[in-house]
Amino acid sequence: MNLTVPDRPFAVRPTTWIEPERLRAALGLRITLVSETFQRTGSFKFRAAFHRARTSSARHLIAASSGNFGQALALACRLLRKQATIVMPSISARVKIEAVRGHGAAVELTDVEKESREDGVARILASFPEAEVASAYADPAVIAGNATLGVEIAARLSRFSPARRRKAVVVVPIGGGGISSGILTGLEAAGLSEVPVVGAEPLLANDAAESLRRGELVSHAGEALSLADGARLPRLGGNNWTILREGIRAIVEVPEAQIAGAVRALFTQANLKAEPTGALGIGALLTSPERFEDREVFVVITGGNVDPAVYSRILTGANSVAEAYGAP
Amino acid sequence: MNLTVPDRPFAVRPTTWIEPERLRAALGLRITLVSETFQRTGSFKFRAAFHRARTSSARHLIAASSGNFGQALALACRLLRKQATIVMPSISARVKIEAVRGHGAAVELTDVEKESREDGVARILASFPEAEVASAYADPAVIAGNATLGVEIAARLSRFSPARRRKAVVVVPIGGGGISSGILTGLEAAGLSEVPVVGAEPLLANDAAESLRRGELVSHAGEALSLADGARLPRLGGNNWTILREGIRAIVEVPEAQIAGAVRALFTQANLKAEPTGALGIGALLTSPERFEDREVFVVITGGNVDPAVYSRILTGANSVAEAYGAP
Repeated sequence: MNLTVPDRPFAVRPTTWIEPERLRAALGLRITLVSETFQRTGSFKFRAAFHRARTSSARHLIAASSGNFGQALALACRLLRKQATIVMPSISARVKIEAVRGHGAAVELTDVEKESREDGVARILASFPEAEVASAYADPAVIAGNATLGVEIAARLSRFSPARRRKAVVVVPIGGGGISSGILTGLEAAGLSEVPVVGAEPLLANDAAESLRRGELVSHAGEALSLADGARLPRLGGNNWTILREGIRAIVEVPEAQIAGAVRALFTQANLKAEPTGALGIGALLTSPERFEDREVFVVITGGNVDPAVYSRILTGANSVAEAYGAP
Repeated sequence: MNLTVPDRPFAVRPTTWIEPERLRAALGLRITLVSETFQRTGSFKFRAAFHRARTSSARHLIAASSGNFGQALALACRLLRKQATIVMPSISARVKIEAVRGHGAAVELTDVEKESREDGVARILASFPEAEVASAYADPAVIAGNATLGVEIAARLSRFSPARRRKAVVVVPIGGGGISSGILTGLEAAGLSEVPVVGAEPLLANDAAESLRRGELVSHAGEALSLADGARLPRLGGNNWTILREGIRAIVEVPEAQIAGAVRALFTQANLKAEPTGALGIGALLTSPERFEDREVFVVITGGNVDPAVYSRILTGANSVAEAYGAP
């Protein structure tokens, strides 16, 4: 794997640091939010997509994505004057499908109950023999692009005293493993590989936690219907697993009620709009607060794109997909 | 008026700059958000309250506030080891009352239909002869504290080319006139008094716009039930009017539907949680977009504290107080 971490390109925005006083008081934890919700296209995925598209010689990129990587690749390709086709599950949030199209990409919908995303991509790729497939999480260039966030965190930590830095822990959502492996890579590139990174994964889609327990890459049979729609994937990417098995300190499995509770806590106590997947890190703090006591906890909020109706139901108490998405 | 603008105190956070790509595309305007939603206590009011409490010799401060100034003064007094008593309308958002109490201040509720806020404050002040009354908007120290945001905007504008700076316009909500007069004061202190500042006021509570039209300070009979609960006040503060009548370029009167639409636009197209009062500037852009064409529009988002149930109803389509607050 060529994992040379690039300097953050001008097109990528620096992350937003928030010290949420009321959330700190409510949880009794020293939390700093590392928010990618104001990144271009509203999630960290733009870091990955831009680096991936920029370092490819192909003029047309195809990707499977539940939405955020799709939006990010669509904008990256538009900025780089390339063509993008995004394969999305038909159950994706409507706002995400519209956003991808808004950036000028073509969208192909697949029914994940009838064919896997990979099969959908293969089927569509057959029509575009000159296009290249970009993985939303497993390509080395994607991991290297995400690593720019790890470098930003390391730069902030480098201003801490050594005693304070030793208390640092980074909490990050795990879906395909793209951002978690990227942050590990970035911290290592910046010489801070000793900073522990803890994953936050939906309990309903806990293939990464199981992989870590068994010491081998576990695949689940299908996609679990977690509120965290960016973390429904049934297994980690191979490159991501290679990095995580060595580097990740632990994975907290977050029940659905704690994912929803994290969305509400960020709204009420930090004024931050996060999508359920983006709130997984706070969900891990709600699930296992004792693990983070007396630490400097950096919680990566990976994205903010969520359907207003779904978000409203979560704000007013929905604690599951069934409650948040209403009747099918 | 002593309006020496202080350096931003360490306790006050710098503002958050957001360039909302999707919102820019949707409105066709070159918008930069100047968000105070991540300021301490979730609104710009902390700038005012901290400077007011710090420069006072009194050990006990009393203020009338619909909530945000109350939270801000409560925290400022706690940090400065002073006592705070906040007089709030009984119809204030519950989260705001709880937040004030959470910062260690005493809360006294008044029924604004039975006595004015001023009468409520006078009644309570009688019990605390050694306390000092702090105005949420009209005290010179409050205006000077708010001016620190004008200085931050000026610092950003000073990096622009002269041609680009000439296109700049700042849009800011108007309630009592505290932040609008503060920004005018800060821009002037930084030598940029030529940058136009446009106010955004609820059409339902348009006393400032009427004052500007008539050239004299207009008082309305009572508080209008606008969604923008921080801008319901029936008249400007005297010091604020003195500054605004000379300095403000125009005031856009924003209908309730555009206030609600602005909250939704910030949610959907900028991932920003704003309270209705905080979204008034975007409401002005929705109301009179032609006024802002071909400009560099800095929109001040003054705060983010809003009840989750009210916010949910606005997200799903509520366009008035009656719709957003449900049955009385």
